[in-house]
Amino acid sequence: MEYESLRERVWRANLLLPGYKLVTFTWGNVSEVDRAAGVFAIKPSGVEYSDLRPEDIVVLDLAGHVMAGALNPSSDTETHLELYNAFPSIGGIVHTHSSHAVAWAQAGEDIPCCGTTQADYFYGPVPCAPHLTQAEIGEAYEKNTGRSIVETFLSRGLDPTHVPGVVCASHGPFTWGRDAAQAVYHAVVLEEVAKTALLTRQVCGEARPAPQRYLDKHFLRKHGPNAYYGQKARKGE
Amino acid sequence: MEYESLRERVWRANLLLPGYKLVTFTWGNVSEVDRAAGVFAIKPSGVEYSDLRPEDIVVLDLAGHVMAGALNPSSDTETHLELYNAFPSIGGIVHTHSSHAVAWAQAGEDIPCCGTTQADYFYGPVPCAPHLTQAEIGEAYEKNTGRSIVETFLSRGLDPTHVPGVVCASHGPFTWGRDAAQAVYHAVVLEEVAKTALLTRQVCGEARPAPQRYLDKHFLRKHGPNAYYGQKARKGE
Amino acid sequence: MEYESLRERVWRANLLLPGYKLVTFTWGNVSEVDRAAGVFAIKPSGVEYSDLRPEDIVVLDLAGHVMAGALNPSSDTETHLELYNAFPSIGGIVHTHSSHAVAWAQAGEDIPCCGTTQADYFYGPVPCAPHLTQAEIGEAYEKNTGRSIVETFLSRGLDPTHVPGVVCASHGPFTWGRDAAQAVYHAVVLEEVAKTALLTRQVCGEARPAPQRYLDKHFLRKHGPNAYYGQKARKGE
Amino acid sequence: MEYESLRERVWRANLLLPGYKLVTFTWGNVSEVDRAAGVFAIKPSGVEYSDLRPEDIVVLDLAGHVMAGALNPSSDTETHLELYNAFPSIGGIVHTHSSHAVAWAQAGEDIPCCGTTQADYFYGPVPCAPHLTQAEIGEAYEKNTGRSIVETFLSRGLDPTHVPGVVCASHGPFTWGRDAAQAVYHAVVLEEVAKTALLTRQVCGEARPAPQRYLDKHFLRKHGPNAYYGQKARKGE
Repeated sequence: MEYESLRERVWRANLLLPGYKLVTFTWGNVSEVDRAAGVFAIKPSGVEYSDLRPEDIVVLDLAGHVMAGALNPSSDTETHLELYNAFPSIGGIVHTHSSHAVAWAQAGEDIPCCGTTQADYFYGPVPCAPHLTQAEIGEAYEKNTGRSIVETFLSRGLDPTHVPGVVCASHGPFTWGRDAAQAVYHAVVLEEVAKTALLTRQVCGEARPAPQRYLDKHFLRKHGPNAYYGQKARKGE
Repeated sequence: MEYESLRERVWRANLLLPGYKLVTFTWGNVSEVDRAAGVFAIKPSGVEYSDLRPEDIVVLDLAGHVMAGALNPSSDTETHLELYNAFPSIGGIVHTHSSHAVAWAQAGEDIPCCGTTQADYFYGPVPCAPHLTQAEIGEAYEKNTGRSIVETFLSRGLDPTHVPGVVCASHGPFTWGRDAAQAVYHAVVLEEVAKTALLTRQVCGEARPAPQRYLDKHFLRKHGPNAYYGQKARKGE
Repeated sequence: MEYESLRERVWRANLLLPGYKLVTFTWGNVSEVDRAAGVFAIKPSGVEYSDLRPEDIVVLDLAGHVMAGALNPSSDTETHLELYNAFPSIGGIVHTHSSHAVAWAQAGEDIPCCGTTQADYFYGPVPCAPHLTQAEIGEAYEKNTGRSIVETFLSRGLDPTHVPGVVCASHGPFTWGRDAAQAVYHAVVLEEVAKTALLTRQVCGEARPAPQRYLDKHFLRKHGPNAYYGQKARKGE
Repeated sequence: MEYESLRERVWRANLLLPGYKLVTFTWGNVSEVDRAAGVFAIKPSGVEYSDLRPEDIVVLDLAGHVMAGALNPSSDTETHLELYNAFPSIGGIVHTHSSHAVAWAQAGEDIPCCGTTQADYFYGPVPCAPHLTQAEIGEAYEKNTGRSIVETFLSRGLDPTHVPGVVCASHGPFTWGRDAAQAVYHAVVLEEVAKTALLTRQVCGEARPAPQRYLDKHFLRKHGPNAYYGQKARKGE
């Protein structure tokens, strides 16, 4: 099998989604890029996770041409492609319709950073990318979904390695990481913080942001040169 | 066994309901119609899913006469019958008391289409069929439950293949599809969108509808002549 | 083993509570009465469900004297006893701290009958029994908890076979039935309707009661001489 | 293995956290102190529960020096140490990010004692320890987290054996007990009461505290010289 190791990693990462209860039916997909080879691998469109085999994973180059695999790639492929080309620091991407992240997407609101659970992974709010216009939808819906995410990060001056995810208005979340497995990890984190931010709002009437000093402390004790969380070999997870 | 294949499909589809955690005890039922044979098969009344065998499934003709099976059919049989006769495009029907769909039914509200999760399957809100009158309940409660669903679709000009479900006020959801399995699939979708619409309302104070252009894009990329979601052989699922 | 069949039934019914996820740790108990023998059997106090054996079940007479069993009976035994003596029509009792029923108890509110899910089993709201006074707590807390339930039913003219449960203010639910198994069944129903009534309130700002004609129809199609739900041998479940 | 029995108990207690669904990934830790030996044992930092072995558990003395174990101790070790030194009555400590307890922490509110479920274990509200200042974070974040908990208890005159837990603002819960196993037990109780207090607020617009007489009755029937809940050998669990 061509690109065997990449496709096996992507296959395995896709199977994590139902394991973490992040997807219903086929409503999610994972990809990973091999920057050296100039290709990325992604779940095929509309295939049940229980039927998915490594050889079903589709490989495309970074211009979007299929390099290997007999099935249609995920309908969200153009969104992944746009993100890989705009964010050179990311290595894996996940899209799901996990319930609480979808709720914030459907409300069209950023998820505020209410505490250390989020601050350990997201250095601030999870941004909400705005609705596409009719022209953007008509021209290239999936590609422009990626563009709107990229523009949200550029216009707010956000570093995608410091804020490894987004919710797209009326749609749902995308997360990313250094590889497919870490992108799935961040999808789990995003769903959990979407849930606890809503619960916080239910307790006190607002999703109360944590003081900035808590974000500084928690993000930086796990990330960057002075990180001290975890074991040496595992730092940054 | 008479109607063996139909009864086995209906038996199998009924067993999906506890698998998807859509039912407590016996609170749900699935049926499927064989239009060529002029019959439909449905779960018997009040039988636990764990005890259900294919030969327990009851077969009736489209006038409501029992053709096969020794048990009483579901108490909701007349509702299914009414829907099969009024909606020639549908092939399977599901009734459940799934919690979030019941909440919208009990509130007596349509479930707004807040995002692409719903728009992939429902081309707009899930309508709420109104309460029956005392006369309608007294005359034929279950049959008139079906009538009120049909009238809701007729009076709003809705196509049941574009809006494959409904919630009945103070009661709960019915969904349908081209066969029993797809009707169950839509019951899962309906419960999930009922949940995320409520979560959306909890985030921002309303169940904020998605822009119409999102409904157009998402419903039509999965359904109709220009659909491009999924693989060729699976299109429309 | 004395009272072997009664203790086995009560043991089995107690084990249903963790199976239905109605209890955390030891926070629940089930009993059943044998009216002919003038005794009832109940879970011992503070024993984990995973450790519970049939011979641990304690048997008492209807004056509250232990007849069999080496362990202390549930600390709620006096409440069960009070209910068996006041309600001759009931045969089994369950107490749990299931989350949503506890929420209504802690709010001190009746659970309104919002739809047919509740009306199939409860012919109206689930009443909330009021707080005990300091004198009632000091004199005999558990016995007076039972008294307050009985007085709630008497003062409202409620038939315990039509309303098979209650929530006690700042405490939690008790349910009952013709035997221990049916009391557990009603505990599951009560938790589910407590949940959906709250969800209904979250959708529309109130826990909107269903029209009385729906209660009449649904309760009476399952109970009483004209019931037509289920199979002949199972009627009333 | 040095300190074998202590490390095995702590290892086992850590594995309870995923079993009770109190943790996602590595977001939690359990420790236990051996007062006679003057040491405590704690989970290593950032190690997955599925990979954890008894010999990975780190042992430190009560000045914070590592006595046994090759891995870095939990990043929360200084918080545990501070609590063991300030509260001589406690023998085990748990930290988690369980969702509902986190919501109250993120809201910055005490969890009111709304009913007997909480009063059986917490003799009043679960206090919320305030935010640390920038100076406290900069000097010694984890140690000062412990200090802020201790000061919260001292300034309110609370006995840590009567109130076996706390939520830290914008962070999450810590619980404790006579040993690691009871600290985990209290972590389960805290998450459940955090959930039911929020549900109570959702039912009636507030998290309505139970009357003091209910707290007195329920806490004291399980704790202290006149306790009568449970069996003799199990009293106090």
